[in-house]
Amino acid sequence: MTLSKEDTIIGFIGTGVMGKSMAGHLLRAGYQVLVFNRTKARAEELIQIGAVWQDTVEKLAARSNVIITMVGYPKDVEEVYLGKDGIISHAKSGSYLVDMTTSAPDLAKRIYTEALAQGMYALDAPVSGGDIGAKEARLSIMVGGDNDVFNALVPIFNCVGKNVVLQGNAGAGQHTKMCNQIAVALTMIGVCEAIAYAKTAGLNPETVLKSIESGAAGSFSLTNLAPRMLTDNFAPGFYVKHFIKDMTIALASAQEMGLLTPGLELAKSLYEQLAQQGEENSGTHALIKLYLQKDK
Amino acid sequence: MTLSKEDTIIGFIGTGVMGKSMAGHLLRAGYQVLVFNRTKARAEELIQIGAVWQDTVEKLAARSNVIITMVGYPKDVEEVYLGKDGIISHAKSGSYLVDMTTSAPDLAKRIYTEALAQGMYALDAPVSGGDIGAKEARLSIMVGGDNDVFNALVPIFNCVGKNVVLQGNAGAGQHTKMCNQIAVALTMIGVCEAIAYAKTAGLNPETVLKSIESGAAGSFSLTNLAPRMLTDNFAPGFYVKHFIKDMTIALASAQEMGLLTPGLELAKSLYEQLAQQGEENSGTHALIKLYLQKDK
Repeated sequence: MTLSKEDTIIGFIGTGVMGKSMAGHLLRAGYQVLVFNRTKARAEELIQIGAVWQDTVEKLAARSNVIITMVGYPKDVEEVYLGKDGIISHAKSGSYLVDMTTSAPDLAKRIYTEALAQGMYALDAPVSGGDIGAKEARLSIMVGGDNDVFNALVPIFNCVGKNVVLQGNAGAGQHTKMCNQIAVALTMIGVCEAIAYAKTAGLNPETVLKSIESGAAGSFSLTNLAPRMLTDNFAPGFYVKHFIKDMTIALASAQEMGLLTPGLELAKSLYEQLAQQGEENSGTHALIKLYLQKDK
Repeated sequence: MTLSKEDTIIGFIGTGVMGKSMAGHLLRAGYQVLVFNRTKARAEELIQIGAVWQDTVEKLAARSNVIITMVGYPKDVEEVYLGKDGIISHAKSGSYLVDMTTSAPDLAKRIYTEALAQGMYALDAPVSGGDIGAKEARLSIMVGGDNDVFNALVPIFNCVGKNVVLQGNAGAGQHTKMCNQIAVALTMIGVCEAIAYAKTAGLNPETVLKSIESGAAGSFSLTNLAPRMLTDNFAPGFYVKHFIKDMTIALASAQEMGLLTPGLELAKSLYEQLAQQGEENSGTHALIKLYLQKDK
């Protein structure tokens, strides 16, 4: 399967913070891009640089041959692919369908199977790297699906990411993203408890970071997020509410597989407490707030 | 306070894996070094390169002016400093006492106070970096105590470490080490649950690492210990039994301060389960075994 840039019409659904950056890279790389988003205003910037607005998923699907989705929750993914007005009912046979939303592995498998029954090729391809990774086109892209289909789409993935890896069959991209989120969640708890301990013990947390960040305690979170905790900068790189969604998927998936993940369970329950305190739109590093109020 | 190399006689107590490397660096830097260890055989290598054996703590203490300890558990620290045959009863007034064992912050404060009452100057100075960091003289050294005393000993610390930081008053070095161990413990749980999830989901964990280790999930443990888990190499960089000791100190200390640390509690209980299964002399990354047996 080859897919020349000239013969490719990309339909991009979901132009939020991540999707907007990604679709922009595709446009600048010279692809024709059609766009749909629930809130049209969020697609305006893309329309101004050449994206062509479609007012329904149905129309977008019928006019594209590569359809990329970057939506919110698994229920949104389900609706946009499997709903009666959705992609699989309206896309052309031979189309490539790429869900880049972080979503449930089982749903990715269902989409793969239903797409194939209509002669369409689906991949699950969630990303990590956040808004900055999307902006700078250096996302890590974790892909599940068929090898041929993956190869056909690598040029497109390379426009938005740097670390593009086929992880296995349908669902494997989502499973890999779950591994990522599990590691992120526990590391964040460790960083928060270390900083809460430091503050409570009367240490200077900045000086503590100087001693611990370059050694065995070192992590992306300790280097990049701990300093934001110390300056009370809780602007979202990644939202608490989306992290809870991801952990909910990961935990359900682990439980289905019969795997015990007490760390993940704890992380999910701590983040749910945090969300209940009105922090669902804060960045994930706002978890430190839960610790610092508790000991007062 | 100045302390010339010529006028310094270092008494080094505890020549295990860490202590042996550290005392060796001091000898090679040109310091006179007296040594004592419960098992004399473990001091032989040092004696061969110039260390002078002392057959009791009492004699070593009386003949040194800088006494460094690197022993096992807080009870060993207590005995060697505060016991009737210990350092504080037998060292000369004006001596510097440096405990580099990972031990309890409260005990460090007691030693500081009792030392000062005898005209001696105590620091707590635990390290991180493990056996390799000790061998290569690039330990991170976290120090608690008085500024003048710290400054007097910096040349000695620089012989064994690279990242030497005064963290605050007596006990602050130990508290900082607790922060380090808390972050390490939770990161390790995250790495283990991520790998257990990957294996259980039928992914190739090596390929998963390729996708996740350079992003937000990245950590020292993911880069350095996950590959050892995947090749079933559980040789100790750091022993499970010592990690449990450290977490026990950290948890007791957090509880005394009224700080809730559910992540640390979970980590301690998981490691205790692991030790009960006969893994107390394995490396800390053997935690993965607990997860992979559970889902069978």
